[in-house]
Amino acid sequence: MTRAVLHDYFRSSASYRVRIALNLKGISYESHAIDLRTDEQKSADYRRLNPQGFVPMLEMNGERLTQSLAIFDYLDSQVPEPPFVPHDPAGRAHVLALALTVACDIHPLNNLRVLRYLKNQLGQPQDAIDDWYRHWCSEGLAALEGLAALQAGKYLYGDTLSMADICLVPQLYNARRLDTPLDAFPTLTRVDAALTQLPAFAAAHPDRQESQ
Amino acid sequence: MTRAVLHDYFRSSASYRVRIALNLKGISYESHAIDLRTDEQKSADYRRLNPQGFVPMLEMNGERLTQSLAIFDYLDSQVPEPPFVPHDPAGRAHVLALALTVACDIHPLNNLRVLRYLKNQLGQPQDAIDDWYRHWCSEGLAALEGLAALQAGKYLYGDTLSMADICLVPQLYNARRLDTPLDAFPTLTRVDAALTQLPAFAAAHPDRQESQ
Repeated sequence: MTRAVLHDYFRSSASYRVRIALNLKGISYESHAIDLRTDEQKSADYRRLNPQGFVPMLEMNGERLTQSLAIFDYLDSQVPEPPFVPHDPAGRAHVLALALTVACDIHPLNNLRVLRYLKNQLGQPQDAIDDWYRHWCSEGLAALEGLAALQAGKYLYGDTLSMADICLVPQLYNARRLDTPLDAFPTLTRVDAALTQLPAFAAAHPDRQESQ
Repeated sequence: MTRAVLHDYFRSSASYRVRIALNLKGISYESHAIDLRTDEQKSADYRRLNPQGFVPMLEMNGERLTQSLAIFDYLDSQVPEPPFVPHDPAGRAHVLALALTVACDIHPLNNLRVLRYLKNQLGQPQDAIDDWYRHWCSEGLAALEGLAALQAGKYLYGDTLSMADICLVPQLYNARRLDTPLDAFPTLTRVDAALTQLPAFAAAHPDRQESQ
Protein backbone atom coordinates (compact mmCIF):
# COMPACT_ATOMS: atom_id res chain seq x y z
CA MET A 1 0.00 0.00 0.00
CA THR A 2 1.34 3.43 -0.91
CA ARG A 3 1.84 5.69 2.05
CA ALA A 4 -0.95 8.21 2.63
CA VAL A 5 -0.18 11.84 1.82
CA LEU A 6 -1.91 14.61 3.75
CA HIS A 7 -1.95 18.04 2.14
CA ASP A 8 -2.39 20.35 5.08
CA TYR A 9 -1.63 23.65 6.77
CA PHE A 10 -0.41 23.56 10.35
CA ARG A 11 -2.98 26.03 11.70
CA SER A 12 -6.01 24.97 9.66
CA SER A 13 -8.62 23.53 12.07
CA ALA A 14 -9.81 21.00 9.53
CA SER A 15 -6.23 19.85 8.83
CA TYR A 16 -5.59 19.57 12.57
CA ARG A 17 -8.69 17.35 12.86
CA VAL A 18 -7.44 14.99 10.16
CA ARG A 19 -3.97 14.80 11.74
CA ILE A 20 -5.59 13.71 15.02
CA ALA A 21 -7.75 11.16 13.18
CA LEU A 22 -4.78 9.62 11.33
CA ASN A 23 -2.79 9.43 14.57
CA LEU A 24 -5.67 7.76 16.43
CA LYS A 25 -5.95 5.13 13.71
CA GLY A 26 -2.20 4.60 13.68
CA ILE A 27 -1.94 5.44 9.98
CA SER A 28 1.48 6.81 9.10
CA TYR A 29 1.41 9.55 6.49
CA GLU A 30 3.59 11.98 4.65
CA SER A 31 2.75 15.62 5.24
CA HIS A 32 2.69 18.02 2.31
CA ALA A 33 2.40 21.56 3.64
CA ILE A 34 0.26 24.08 1.73
CA ASP A 35 0.89 27.60 2.97
CA LEU A 36 -2.44 29.42 3.16
CA ARG A 37 -0.65 32.68 4.04
CA THR A 38 0.85 32.82 0.56
CA ASP A 39 -2.29 31.41 -1.13
CA GLU A 40 -0.45 28.25 -2.14
CA GLN A 41 -3.83 26.45 -2.09
CA LYS A 42 -4.71 28.45 -5.21
CA SER A 43 -1.55 27.47 -7.11
CA ALA A 44 -1.93 25.60 -10.40
CA ASP A 45 0.06 22.67 -9.00
CA TYR A 46 -2.27 22.19 -6.06
CA ARG A 47 -5.43 22.88 -8.05
CA ARG A 48 -4.49 20.05 -10.38
CA LEU A 49 -4.72 17.72 -7.39
CA ASN A 50 -7.68 19.42 -5.71
CA PRO A 51 -9.72 21.76 -7.93
CA GLN A 52 -11.49 23.15 -4.87
CA GLY A 53 -8.19 24.53 -3.59
CA PHE A 54 -8.88 23.74 0.06
CA VAL A 55 -6.93 21.89 2.71
CA PRO A 56 -6.97 19.25 4.01
CA MET A 57 -6.87 16.72 1.18
CA LEU A 58 -5.83 13.17 1.87
CA GLU A 59 -4.41 10.89 -0.81
CA MET A 60 -4.92 7.30 0.28
CA ASN A 61 -5.49 4.01 -1.55
CA GLY A 62 -5.61 5.90 -4.86
CA GLU A 63 -8.43 8.19 -3.68
CA ARG A 64 -8.26 11.95 -3.23
CA LEU A 65 -10.42 12.68 -0.21
CA THR A 66 -11.65 16.09 0.90
CA GLN A 67 -13.82 17.40 3.75
CA SER A 68 -12.58 16.31 7.17
CA LEU A 69 -15.83 14.62 8.24
CA ALA A 70 -15.95 12.59 5.03
CA ILE A 71 -12.31 11.60 5.65
CA PHE A 72 -13.23 10.38 9.17
CA ASP A 73 -15.92 8.18 7.66
CA TYR A 74 -13.45 6.72 5.16
CA LEU A 75 -10.79 6.09 7.81
CA ASP A 76 -13.38 4.28 9.94
CA SER A 77 -14.07 1.95 7.02
CA GLN A 78 -10.37 1.17 6.49
CA VAL A 79 -9.20 0.93 10.11
CA PRO A 80 -12.17 0.14 12.36
CA GLU A 81 -10.40 0.68 15.71
CA PRO A 82 -10.87 2.97 17.51
CA PRO A 83 -14.27 3.80 15.94
CA PHE A 84 -15.04 7.49 15.50
CA VAL A 85 -18.80 7.00 16.01
CA PRO A 86 -20.81 4.74 18.33
CA HIS A 87 -22.39 1.63 16.82
CA ASP A 88 -26.00 2.41 17.79
CA PRO A 89 -27.90 4.63 15.33
CA ALA A 90 -29.06 7.23 17.86
CA GLY A 91 -25.57 7.50 19.36
CA ARG A 92 -24.11 7.94 15.87
CA ALA A 93 -26.61 10.71 15.13
CA HIS A 94 -25.83 12.52 18.38
CA VAL A 95 -22.07 12.33 17.80
CA LEU A 96 -22.45 13.50 14.21
CA ALA A 97 -24.59 16.41 15.44
CA LEU A 98 -21.86 17.45 17.90
CA ALA A 99 -19.20 17.26 15.18
CA LEU A 100 -21.38 19.14 12.70
CA THR A 101 -22.05 21.88 15.26
CA VAL A 102 -18.32 22.66 15.07
CA ALA A 103 -17.89 21.92 11.36
CA CYS A 104 -20.99 23.77 10.11
CA ASP A 105 -21.97 26.31 12.76
CA ILE A 106 -18.62 27.62 14.02
CA HIS A 107 -15.66 26.93 11.79
CA PRO A 108 -16.96 28.09 8.36
CA LEU A 109 -17.67 31.57 9.67
CA ASN A 110 -14.23 32.04 11.10
CA ASN A 111 -11.73 30.67 8.66
CA LEU A 112 -9.09 32.72 6.94
CA ARG A 113 -10.95 33.40 3.68
CA VAL A 114 -13.91 34.87 5.59
CA LEU A 115 -11.81 37.06 7.90
CA ARG A 116 -9.95 38.31 4.83
CA TYR A 117 -13.21 39.20 3.07
CA LEU A 118 -14.33 41.22 6.09
CA LYS A 119 -11.05 43.12 5.96
CA ASN A 120 -10.48 43.53 2.23
CA GLN A 121 -13.93 43.66 0.67
CA LEU A 122 -15.91 45.12 3.56
CA GLY A 123 -13.10 47.32 4.90
CA GLN A 124 -13.73 46.27 8.50
CA PRO A 125 -11.21 47.30 11.18
CA GLN A 126 -9.41 44.60 13.17
CA ASP A 127 -11.63 45.19 16.24
CA ALA A 128 -14.78 44.44 14.28
CA ILE A 129 -13.18 41.34 12.75
CA ASP A 130 -12.16 40.09 16.20
CA ASP A 131 -15.69 40.74 17.47
CA TRP A 132 -17.09 38.76 14.52
CA TYR A 133 -14.82 35.84 15.32
CA ARG A 134 -15.70 35.79 19.01
CA HIS A 135 -19.42 36.27 18.39
CA TRP A 136 -19.81 33.16 16.19
CA CYS A 137 -17.30 31.15 18.15
CA SER A 138 -19.04 31.90 21.47
CA GLU A 139 -22.51 31.30 20.08
CA GLY A 140 -21.47 27.96 18.62
CA LEU A 141 -19.56 26.86 21.70
CA ALA A 142 -22.58 27.74 23.87
CA ALA A 143 -24.70 25.40 21.74
CA LEU A 144 -22.03 22.72 22.00
CA GLU A 145 -21.75 23.19 25.77
CA GLY A 146 -25.54 22.81 26.06
CA LEU A 147 -25.46 19.51 24.14
CA ALA A 148 -22.30 18.29 25.88
CA ALA A 149 -23.60 19.06 29.38
CA LEU A 150 -26.33 16.47 28.76
CA GLN A 151 -24.19 13.86 27.06
CA ALA A 152 -20.57 14.16 28.14
CA GLY A 153 -18.70 11.72 30.32
CA LYS A 154 -14.95 11.62 30.17
CA TYR A 155 -15.31 12.78 26.57
CA LEU A 156 -17.95 14.78 24.68
CA TYR A 157 -20.28 11.86 24.21
CA GLY A 158 -20.02 9.53 27.17
CA ASP A 159 -16.70 7.90 27.99
CA THR A 160 -15.73 6.83 24.50
CA LEU A 161 -13.69 9.05 22.27
CA SER A 162 -15.49 10.07 19.05
CA MET A 163 -15.22 12.39 16.07
CA ALA A 164 -16.90 15.05 18.19
CA ASP A 165 -13.77 15.14 20.35
CA ILE A 166 -11.59 15.34 17.25
CA CYS A 167 -13.50 18.47 16.21
CA LEU A 168 -13.46 20.04 19.69
CA VAL A 169 -9.73 20.31 20.28
CA PRO A 170 -8.78 22.28 17.13
CA GLN A 171 -11.75 24.59 17.68
CA LEU A 172 -10.69 25.44 21.24
CA TYR A 173 -7.08 25.91 20.11
CA ASN A 174 -8.38 28.38 17.55
CA ALA A 175 -10.67 30.11 20.08
CA ARG A 176 -7.76 30.67 22.46
CA ARG A 177 -5.56 32.07 19.69
CA LEU A 178 -8.22 34.74 19.15
CA ASP A 179 -8.64 35.37 22.91
CA THR A 180 -12.19 34.07 23.08
CA PRO A 181 -13.31 33.75 26.73
CA LEU A 182 -14.04 30.11 27.57
CA ASP A 183 -15.26 30.44 31.19
CA ALA A 184 -18.86 29.74 30.18
CA PHE A 185 -17.93 26.34 28.74
CA PRO A 186 -16.80 24.17 31.68
CA THR A 187 -17.72 20.85 30.06
CA LEU A 188 -15.87 21.68 26.85
CA THR A 189 -12.71 22.87 28.61
CA ARG A 190 -12.70 19.85 30.96
CA VAL A 191 -12.97 17.41 28.05
CA ASP A 192 -10.41 19.38 26.03
CA ALA A 193 -7.91 19.15 28.90
CA ALA A 194 -8.30 15.37 28.99
CA LEU A 195 -7.98 15.03 25.24
CA THR A 196 -4.88 17.16 24.81
CA GLN A 197 -3.02 14.75 27.11
CA LEU A 198 -3.45 11.92 24.64
CA PRO A 199 -0.42 11.28 22.37
CA ALA A 200 -2.52 11.23 19.16
CA PHE A 201 -3.83 14.72 19.94
CA ALA A 202 -0.53 16.09 21.23
CA ALA A 203 1.39 15.01 18.11
CA ALA A 204 -1.19 16.71 15.87
CA HIS A 205 -0.85 20.12 17.56
CA PRO A 206 0.07 22.98 15.19
CA ASP A 207 3.20 23.78 17.19
CA ARG A 208 4.44 20.23 16.65
CA GLN A 209 4.26 20.38 12.83
CA GLU A 210 7.57 20.71 10.98
CA SER A 211 6.52 23.36 8.48
CA GLN A 212 5.10 26.40 10.21
CA MET B 1 -44.54 4.04 16.84
CA THR B 2 -45.28 7.71 17.53
CA ARG B 3 -45.44 9.84 14.46
CA ALA B 4 -42.28 11.85 13.72
CA VAL B 5 -42.47 15.60 14.32
CA LEU B 6 -40.34 17.95 12.24
CA HIS B 7 -39.73 21.41 13.66
CA ASP B 8 -38.94 23.45 10.59
CA TYR B 9 -39.18 26.73 8.71
CA PHE B 10 -40.41 26.64 5.14
CA ARG B 11 -37.49 28.58 3.66
CA SER B 12 -34.65 27.15 5.76
CA SER B 13 -32.33 25.18 3.45
CA ALA B 14 -31.54 22.65 6.14
CA SER B 15 -35.26 22.13 6.88
CA TYR B 16 -35.96 21.74 3.17
CA ARG B 17 -33.25 19.04 3.01
CA VAL B 18 -34.86 17.08 5.84
CA ARG B 19 -38.32 17.34 4.27
CA ILE B 20 -36.90 15.82 1.06
CA ALA B 21 -35.17 13.08 3.04
CA LEU B 22 -38.34 12.14 4.96
CA ASN B 23 -40.34 12.08 1.74
CA LEU B 24 -37.77 9.87 -0.01
CA LYS B 25 -37.90 7.37 2.85
CA GLY B 26 -41.69 7.48 2.88
CA ILE B 27 -41.79 8.55 6.54
CA SER B 28 -44.94 10.50 7.33
CA TYR B 29 -44.42 13.34 9.78
CA GLU B 30 -46.18 16.18 11.48
CA SER B 31 -44.77 19.60 10.68
CA HIS B 32 -44.32 22.12 13.47
CA ALA B 33 -43.47 25.50 11.94
CA ILE B 34 -40.95 27.74 13.71
CA ASP B 35 -41.03 31.25 12.28
CA LEU B 36 -37.45 32.50 11.99
CA ARG B 37 -38.70 35.95 10.92
CA THR B 38 -40.13 36.52 14.40
CA ASP B 39 -37.26 34.73 16.16
CA GLU B 40 -39.56 31.96 17.34
CA GLN B 41 -36.52 29.64 17.41
CA LYS B 42 -35.32 31.65 20.41
CA SER B 43 -38.59 31.31 22.35
CA ALA B 44 -38.49 29.60 25.74
CA ASP B 45 -40.93 26.94 24.50
CA TYR B 46 -38.71 25.92 21.60
CA ARG B 47 -35.47 26.21 23.55
CA ARG B 48 -36.86 23.71 26.04
CA LEU B 49 -36.99 21.19 23.20
CA ASN B 50 -33.82 22.30 21.43
CA PRO B 51 -31.42 24.41 23.51
CA GLN B 52 -29.45 25.33 20.39
CA GLY B 53 -32.50 27.15 19.03
CA PHE B 54 -31.99 26.05 15.44
CA VAL B 55 -34.22 24.39 12.89
CA PRO B 56 -34.60 21.70 11.74
CA MET B 57 -35.10 19.39 14.70
CA LEU B 58 -36.69 16.00 14.22
CA GLU B 59 -38.43 14.14 17.03
CA MET B 60 -38.52 10.46 16.14
CA ASN B 61 -38.46 7.23 18.16
CA GLY B 62 -38.02 9.25 21.35
CA GLU B 63 -34.89 11.01 20.05
CA ARG B 64 -34.46 14.70 19.38
CA LEU B 65 -32.22 14.92 16.35
CA THR B 66 -30.47 18.01 15.03
CA GLN B 67 -28.13 18.79 12.12
CA SER B 68 -29.54 17.73 8.77
CA LEU B 69 -26.61 15.48 7.81
CA ALA B 70 -26.81 13.64 11.13
CA ILE B 71 -30.56 13.22 10.56
CA PHE B 72 -29.87 11.66 7.12
CA ASP B 73 -27.54 9.15 8.76
CA TYR B 74 -30.21 8.24 11.32
CA LEU B 75 -32.94 7.91 8.70
CA ASP B 76 -30.68 5.57 6.69
CA SER B 77 -30.36 3.34 9.75
CA GLN B 78 -34.14 3.19 10.31
CA VAL B 79 -35.36 2.93 6.71
CA PRO B 80 -32.56 1.55 4.52
CA GLU B 81 -34.24 2.18 1.14
CA PRO B 82 -33.41 4.25 -0.80
CA PRO B 83 -29.91 4.61 0.74
CA PHE B 84 -28.57 8.16 0.98
CA VAL B 85 -24.94 7.05 0.51
CA PRO B 86 -23.32 4.36 -1.68
CA HIS B 87 -22.25 1.13 0.02
CA ASP B 88 -18.57 1.26 -0.98
CA PRO B 89 -16.33 3.29 1.37
CA ALA B 90 -14.78 5.52 -1.32
CA GLY B 91 -18.19 6.26 -2.83
CA ARG B 92 -19.53 7.12 0.62
CA ALA B 93 -16.63 9.50 1.21
CA HIS B 94 -17.12 11.23 -2.14
CA VAL B 95 -20.87 11.66 -1.57
CA LEU B 96 -20.28 12.97 1.95
CA ALA B 97 -17.71 15.43 0.57
CA LEU B 98 -20.25 16.75 -1.95
CA ALA B 99 -22.90 17.14 0.75
CA LEU B 100 -20.43 18.79 3.14
CA THR B 101 -19.34 21.23 0.43
CA VAL B 102 -22.90 22.60 0.56
CA ALA B 103 -23.43 22.16 4.29
CA CYS B 104 -20.06 23.55 5.45
CA ASP B 105 -18.70 25.75 2.67
CA ILE B 106 -21.79 27.51 1.32
CA HIS B 107 -24.82 27.43 3.57
CA PRO B 108 -23.35 28.56 6.93
CA LEU B 109 -22.09 31.80 5.43
CA ASN B 110 -25.42 32.74 3.96
CA ASN B 111 -28.08 31.92 6.46
CA LEU B 112 -30.36 34.46 8.06
CA ARG B 113 -28.39 35.01 11.28
CA VAL B 114 -25.26 35.89 9.30
CA LEU B 115 -26.99 38.25 6.86
CA ARG B 116 -28.63 39.95 9.84
CA TYR B 117 -25.25 40.42 11.57
CA LEU B 118 -23.84 42.06 8.45
CA LYS B 119 -26.77 44.45 8.46
CA ASN B 120 -27.26 45.17 12.15
CA GLN B 121 -23.81 44.82 13.72
CA LEU B 122 -21.63 45.80 10.75
CA GLY B 123 -24.06 48.34 9.27
CA GLN B 124 -23.64 47.00 5.76
CA PRO B 125 -25.97 48.28 3.01
CA GLN B 126 -28.19 45.78 1.15
CA ASP B 127 -25.92 45.82 -1.92
CA ALA B 128 -22.92 44.70 0.09
CA ILE B 129 -25.00 41.97 1.78
CA ASP B 130 -26.21 40.71 -1.60
CA ASP B 131 -22.62 40.71 -2.88
CA TRP B 132 -21.55 38.73 0.18
CA TYR B 133 -24.25 36.15 -0.47
CA ARG B 134 -23.41 35.74 -4.14
CA HIS B 135 -19.66 35.66 -3.52
CA TRP B 136 -19.75 32.65 -1.16
CA CYS B 137 -22.56 30.97 -3.02
CA SER B 138 -20.74 31.23 -6.37
CA GLU B 139 -17.40 30.17 -4.92
CA GLY B 140 -18.96 27.12 -3.28
CA LEU B 141 -21.03 26.17 -6.31
CA ALA B 142 -17.92 26.43 -8.50
CA ALA B 143 -16.19 23.91 -6.23
CA LEU B 144 -19.26 21.67 -6.35
CA GLU B 145 -19.47 21.97 -10.15
CA GLY B 146 -15.79 20.96 -10.39
CA LEU B 147 -16.39 17.85 -8.30
CA ALA B 148 -19.71 17.05 -9.98
CA ALA B 149 -18.32 17.39 -13.50
CA LEU B 150 -16.03 14.44 -12.72
CA GLN B 151 -18.57 12.30 -10.88
CA ALA B 152 -22.10 13.12 -12.01
CA GLY B 153 -24.34 10.89 -14.05
CA LYS B 154 -28.06 11.40 -13.91
CA TYR B 155 -27.49 12.68 -10.38
CA LEU B 156 -24.56 14.35 -8.61
CA TYR B 157 -22.73 11.11 -7.95
CA GLY B 158 -23.38 8.70 -10.77
CA ASP B 159 -26.92 7.58 -11.52
CA THR B 160 -28.03 6.89 -7.98
CA LEU B 161 -29.67 9.53 -5.89
CA SER B 162 -27.73 10.42 -2.72
CA MET B 163 -27.61 12.92 0.13
CA ALA B 164 -25.52 15.16 -2.14
CA ASP B 165 -28.62 15.62 -4.32
CA ILE B 166 -30.73 16.35 -1.24
CA CYS B 167 -28.32 19.19 -0.38
CA LEU B 168 -28.13 20.54 -3.94
CA VAL B 169 -31.79 21.37 -4.57
CA PRO B 170 -32.39 23.65 -1.53
CA GLN B 171 -29.08 25.42 -2.20
CA LEU B 172 -30.02 26.21 -5.81
CA TYR B 173 -33.50 27.32 -4.73
CA ASN B 174 -31.81 29.68 -2.31
CA ALA B 175 -29.29 30.87 -4.91
CA ARG B 176 -32.09 31.76 -7.33
CA ARG B 177 -34.01 33.66 -4.67
CA LEU B 178 -30.96 35.89 -4.26
CA ASP B 179 -30.47 36.24 -8.05
CA THR B 180 -27.17 34.37 -8.13
CA PRO B 181 -26.13 33.68 -11.75
CA LEU B 182 -26.00 29.92 -12.39
CA ASP B 183 -24.75 29.84 -16.02
CA ALA B 184 -21.32 28.63 -14.95
CA PHE B 185 -22.76 25.51 -13.31
CA PRO B 186 -24.24 23.39 -16.13
CA THR B 187 -23.85 20.06 -14.32
CA LEU B 188 -25.54 21.36 -11.17
CA THR B 189 -28.47 22.93 -13.00
CA ARG B 190 -28.97 19.83 -15.18
CA VAL B 191 -29.08 17.56 -12.13
CA ASP B 192 -31.28 20.01 -10.24
CA ALA B 193 -33.80 20.02 -13.11
CA ALA B 194 -34.01 16.22 -12.99
CA LEU B 195 -34.36 16.16 -9.21
CA THR B 196 -37.09 18.77 -8.92
CA GLN B 197 -39.34 16.56 -11.10
CA LEU B 198 -39.33 13.85 -8.44
CA PRO B 199 -42.42 13.84 -6.18
CA ALA B 200 -40.34 13.65 -2.96
CA PHE B 201 -38.50 16.82 -3.93
CA ALA B 202 -41.54 18.62 -5.31
CA ALA B 203 -43.59 18.05 -2.15
CA ALA B 204 -40.76 19.45 0.01
CA HIS B 205 -40.57 22.76 -1.87
CA PRO B 206 -41.01 25.86 0.34
CA ASP B 207 -43.99 27.02 -1.72
CA ARG B 208 -45.77 23.76 -0.98
CA GLN B 209 -45.55 24.10 2.82
CA GLU B 210 -48.74 25.07 4.64
CA SER B 211 -47.26 27.65 6.97
CA GLN B 212 -45.39 30.32 5.07
